[in-house]
Amino acid sequence: MKKITLAHGNGGKLMHGLIKDLFVKNLSNPFLNKMGDAALIDVKNKKLTYTTDSFVIKPIFFPGGDIGKLSVCGTVNDLCVSGARPRYLSCGMIVEDGFDYKDLEEITLSIKAACEKSGVDVVAGDFKVVEKGAVDKIFINTSGIGEVFSNAALGMDRVKPGDKVMINGNIGDHALAVLVAREELKFKSKIVSDCAPLNGLISSVICGDIKFMRDPTRGGLATTLNEISLECGCGISVNESDIPVSGSVKVLSEALGMDPLYLANEGKALMIASAKSASKILSRMKKHPLGKKSAIIGEVRDRKDKRVYLRTMIGTTRVLDMLQSDQLPRIC
Amino acid sequence: MKKITLAHGNGGKLMHGLIKDLFVKNLSNPFLNKMGDAALIDVKNKKLTYTTDSFVIKPIFFPGGDIGKLSVCGTVNDLCVSGARPRYLSCGMIVEDGFDYKDLEEITLSIKAACEKSGVDVVAGDFKVVEKGAVDKIFINTSGIGEVFSNAALGMDRVKPGDKVMINGNIGDHALAVLVAREELKFKSKIVSDCAPLNGLISSVICGDIKFMRDPTRGGLATTLNEISLECGCGISVNESDIPVSGSVKVLSEALGMDPLYLANEGKALMIASAKSASKILSRMKKHPLGKKSAIIGEVRDRKDKRVYLRTMIGTTRVLDMLQSDQLPRIC
Repeated sequence: MKKITLAHGNGGKLMHGLIKDLFVKNLSNPFLNKMGDAALIDVKNKKLTYTTDSFVIKPIFFPGGDIGKLSVCGTVNDLCVSGARPRYLSCGMIVEDGFDYKDLEEITLSIKAACEKSGVDVVAGDFKVVEKGAVDKIFINTSGIGEVFSNAALGMDRVKPGDKVMINGNIGDHALAVLVAREELKFKSKIVSDCAPLNGLISSVICGDIKFMRDPTRGGLATTLNEISLECGCGISVNESDIPVSGSVKVLSEALGMDPLYLANEGKALMIASAKSASKILSRMKKHPLGKKSAIIGEVRDRKDKRVYLRTMIGTTRVLDMLQSDQLPRIC
Repeated sequence: MKKITLAHGNGGKLMHGLIKDLFVKNLSNPFLNKMGDAALIDVKNKKLTYTTDSFVIKPIFFPGGDIGKLSVCGTVNDLCVSGARPRYLSCGMIVEDGFDYKDLEEITLSIKAACEKSGVDVVAGDFKVVEKGAVDKIFINTSGIGEVFSNAALGMDRVKPGDKVMINGNIGDHALAVLVAREELKFKSKIVSDCAPLNGLISSVICGDIKFMRDPTRGGLATTLNEISLECGCGISVNESDIPVSGSVKVLSEALGMDPLYLANEGKALMIASAKSASKILSRMKKHPLGKKSAIIGEVRDRKDKRVYLRTMIGTTRVLDMLQSDQLPRIC
């Protein structure tokens, strides 16, 4: 009998297949079928974005955040990269019988702080307690509604060969901070999750020259690049030497045999911008505290070869595929 | 150290306390503070309702439905009783490693069928897989957006002494159907969950004379009556002989020492309507397939004694309190 496995939830190829063949096929509608970070919906002739995400991270507290902060930032960022100002959140918690009240309070205060930073309100909530062993401590689902920026003009169909690919800073920090916090590894590291709400950064750069944005979470930068390439029907090439990675992440991921390009991020936006405006957008990004290490990392290529290529530090070029099997589970 | 227990999630007194003292206090905003079934939000000057619910029911398949159908109906009904036409849903699934694909498919098809019946689309989704033992099979969170009916005028502040209390049929079926399906009890019963989307029934009766609606799920009819009494500041009295309960539910709940008034329902709406219009609304409710057994079960009393009273079959009157400790966990 066919079983669902961890690999069906890792953001990679198997998950994409399951989502298309089971969910999108059966629940088909014009909004869902676009499979964006958030759905662009139409309510009484107003354009809104709407998204949801469940957070099952282990451990629930990690350097740079906790499941509460993450559950706000994750949904806020999905709204932001869809070109919207986040407005309202819902929050559903499922907690294990015997969970510490103090931890629940700390998580709630993190949610409060992240909401204040993001300019959103939790307006709808649900709280469930299940028996011991029926959930691993606490899972949180958030959904969010955003109002589309009037000066945003995002659309995969606008992406053209020659467009530039940009990111707002170092990759891989979130996944490794979480891994080290699990204490299964006896590493000491100063790596801190990049978990942050991107509404400020994005509202400071949003303009018609930005053609597409996505946050490289599960599956990392490499998987997100592949999604974009698949959806826009163009190849993409990126330069390894231009992709910002901190020294600590380089060292630790090399020691663990992991590739930072496949590690999850929680405060990064990958942007596609027109070639003529990319450097102007880059300089605006660098002025924001969450964009200081922003970089142009590559460009959109032609429509004949729809693959993602990495030009390595040593000058060779290799195909960068989607994540196949898990590097690291439960990081979001 | 203070711990969260199952009683914090049963819909009763402890849960109400926790939600007020921890969540509403810390995440305070005008929309959340109203603590309605759905938040009434304002987006670009349009009135919308927004709600969320997590579904952790055990077993996931039961007579009359499954976790998929329930997760659509639960959120659709929260939007309906808030006086809105349900439009868009989000759906976040958390699945255990090793879960049967066939079951996931069946649940997805139930979601599809329930969406079609409710006139909603799932426009945003999320799918997570966690290790074996980290979740009990599958949990589903849905959130939903509804458009407020132009002819609805719901408001707890409109509830006045003399108003009639109505319900659209038998209570207790959902909770007992689920209990029997657990197979821990060696009962045989023909009780089927009342799980159903209420959009059709409610849109057929909605008018300015309906002052308030709520669906009596966790905590049952008694708890919902207490919530209403607390929030509107009036007493309420209901007549046991007028409350519709099926013969099977009466027999089984008596055998188990359970009170149907505290059992969860998933296809019921409790309505408060003005005295002069109640019988007209009742006859309209009875014309709908989900309202055939509708009844006026009691009335709103004065503002001095803010308690809920039950006039029993044998003619005595007793205070009907909120659910305190659990009768039955994980029924929604």
